[in-house]
Amino acid sequence: MKRTQVAIIGAGPAGLMLSQLLAARGIDTVVLERHSRDYVESRIRAGVLEHQSAAALRAAGVGARMDAQGMAHSSIDLAFAGAHHRIDLEGLTGKKIMVYGQHEVVKDLIAQRLADGGDIRFEAEVNAIEGLDGDQPKVRYTHNGQPHELVCDFIAGCDGYHGVSRTSVPSNALKVYEHRYPYAWLGVLAEAAPTSDELVYARHETGFALYSMRSPSVTRLYFQCRPDEDPEAWSDAALWAELHRRLETGDGWTINEGPILQKNVAPMRSFVVEPMRYQRLFLAGDAAHIVPPTGAKGMNLALADVQVLAPALVRWFEAGDPRGLDSYSEVCLKRVWRVQRFSVWMTRMLHAQPDADAFEERLQQAELASAAACESAARHLAENYVGLPLEAPAT
Amino acid sequence: MKRTQVAIIGAGPAGLMLSQLLAARGIDTVVLERHSRDYVESRIRAGVLEHQSAAALRAAGVGARMDAQGMAHSSIDLAFAGAHHRIDLEGLTGKKIMVYGQHEVVKDLIAQRLADGGDIRFEAEVNAIEGLDGDQPKVRYTHNGQPHELVCDFIAGCDGYHGVSRTSVPSNALKVYEHRYPYAWLGVLAEAAPTSDELVYARHETGFALYSMRSPSVTRLYFQCRPDEDPEAWSDAALWAELHRRLETGDGWTINEGPILQKNVAPMRSFVVEPMRYQRLFLAGDAAHIVPPTGAKGMNLALADVQVLAPALVRWFEAGDPRGLDSYSEVCLKRVWRVQRFSVWMTRMLHAQPDADAFEERLQQAELASAAACESAARHLAENYVGLPLEAPAT
Repeated sequence: MKRTQVAIIGAGPAGLMLSQLLAARGIDTVVLERHSRDYVESRIRAGVLEHQSAAALRAAGVGARMDAQGMAHSSIDLAFAGAHHRIDLEGLTGKKIMVYGQHEVVKDLIAQRLADGGDIRFEAEVNAIEGLDGDQPKVRYTHNGQPHELVCDFIAGCDGYHGVSRTSVPSNALKVYEHRYPYAWLGVLAEAAPTSDELVYARHETGFALYSMRSPSVTRLYFQCRPDEDPEAWSDAALWAELHRRLETGDGWTINEGPILQKNVAPMRSFVVEPMRYQRLFLAGDAAHIVPPTGAKGMNLALADVQVLAPALVRWFEAGDPRGLDSYSEVCLKRVWRVQRFSVWMTRMLHAQPDADAFEERLQQAELASAAACESAARHLAENYVGLPLEAPAT
Repeated sequence: MKRTQVAIIGAGPAGLMLSQLLAARGIDTVVLERHSRDYVESRIRAGVLEHQSAAALRAAGVGARMDAQGMAHSSIDLAFAGAHHRIDLEGLTGKKIMVYGQHEVVKDLIAQRLADGGDIRFEAEVNAIEGLDGDQPKVRYTHNGQPHELVCDFIAGCDGYHGVSRTSVPSNALKVYEHRYPYAWLGVLAEAAPTSDELVYARHETGFALYSMRSPSVTRLYFQCRPDEDPEAWSDAALWAELHRRLETGDGWTINEGPILQKNVAPMRSFVVEPMRYQRLFLAGDAAHIVPPTGAKGMNLALADVQVLAPALVRWFEAGDPRGLDSYSEVCLKRVWRVQRFSVWMTRMLHAQPDADAFEERLQQAELASAAACESAARHLAENYVGLPLEAPAT
């Protein structure tokens, strides 16, 4: 029977970063990941790092490839009513964002952990979490067809919305806040050189579209669709036609086409559980909260959680001081709700709302006009987009 | 048959201010008001003037009593979650607001118009507007039991939401945007010395309340109620109990009680018609748009409209130039929708929403927290509250 100090369930950005941060302080972890290494390293997810997230990766010693290959952006573009409106992130906040795929972050963290002798077990399926009420909880998992047990001091549940961690908590111990949206995103990954230096958030009359990029030769595009949309029903030609229509506002800017590498439909949801701790189990990232993707916040919130959790665990292991652990949920949730609010605001402002009447549509146009043209509104958007300070007492 | 250059229907702030501004440029007007002078001078309405509105009244020569008796405020207070949060309007914008009742503005404008020989006909009921398609439209009205006709070059419809002006326009010539709210305000006017130097916007868990004042001895209070609430069903004791409960957050601040001079329930509605012109008829103020009262914008929008209309009419009469009149609706509507957006945002943030689920309630708390604690959000609120610049190309 294996023993570790912190059992980490899930090798996404939250779990891997936690392992990395704890290893730097000599705290032993085992990361259990149900998927293969290849799967988690190639799974296309988010692609925007807040200023603060990029700085945290650098500080954790895993920022070199990001700085070499990532694309630092100093602005984003809001396109609506036939015109482009630049939100000057750097001018408004002094900060940039880093465009760098989540799977690249995962690759960098895995490589570093393994190089440092870290213990990551891929294709390890957690079957049960036991003994949370005691001081030596246990994780039962299956690896290579064999049952295993991992005894630890604490468990970090970083296994996402569908993971076993949150569902191991008695349901009456968690309060769930949830919202579904009457639309989804159809995502397209294309081998096409980006034609814009910034992300373009477009509110076309037929619905939202987002133009982004993953490298100098790969474009990442999304457009608003029905939640039950079948991506396979879209031919490549139809996808490009829709993307041209939604993104090209008539000012001459055009998008490049190229071979479509991947297409998928991602549902959109808001979700928060409170508290983010149950006894010796700490939830982090998507296991605790989901935001709609419009603000590009999912990965950043996950990284923020473990930047609170890691020093709290260090404080406990090094000094026996439980205060950081005791305030973990409250500190994280303060940020979570602020980011949730921002993500919902961006989402509602930019998507065609199927149930909106003419009045609500005009309000939405006024909201966009205000965000683009009013300096204080643009600054508020920019501050939230580049990311709130990690320990901001108030923002 | 009487003739004038501009027939103004309605002796509210919009109609009277328009008459005042045109008189200063030698343009003849007749103001037709269906109520008595006493009625319009004592009708309790709004009580907050934007910085710009106060400046406009001063510039129009009717600011002396306002400056002597009005109360300039440099901040407002947001009360929620058991604490007060000061929004430093002056610190954030360099501007103050003026607390001064709408009926006082009306009194000042009537006194000045009559002192200058202006023609205001009280208890003059407009029966019909005719000939809008020609260049000499006619207003038929009844005064002292006698039918009258007033021929003019232009008509200004400043007679409010229920007035005859807008309903004289063929309905297919106007597009109506409307929204009803599932709550209203129960307003209380009390002879009680204010105990706060600033307006208090309170979001109590049971609903919104607003603490304001009309003079050093008169308090004006409101609280969120059902749209069908019967104010007579509330005893004075019950009203005070509800106001104490909603406004006193537990930090020691208390409100003064006093004889209740008036109580009423005001419905809450958003409403905009487009365009604000039909041929020779120009709609201004509540005849063209209603905002929910939470942002204190109704009177200010009315004054803003006529500050666009007056110079446009002057330009036409003095130079035969129709361009100001032709752009009147577009210029006003740009501001109207921005102010509508702000008013709806304030309203939705501060009221208990009967149909909100737990998620939406937490979002609302996060919105309040952001508005109070984030400098850019507070600045945006403050800029809108003190009032957007009149001809702002972009805000």
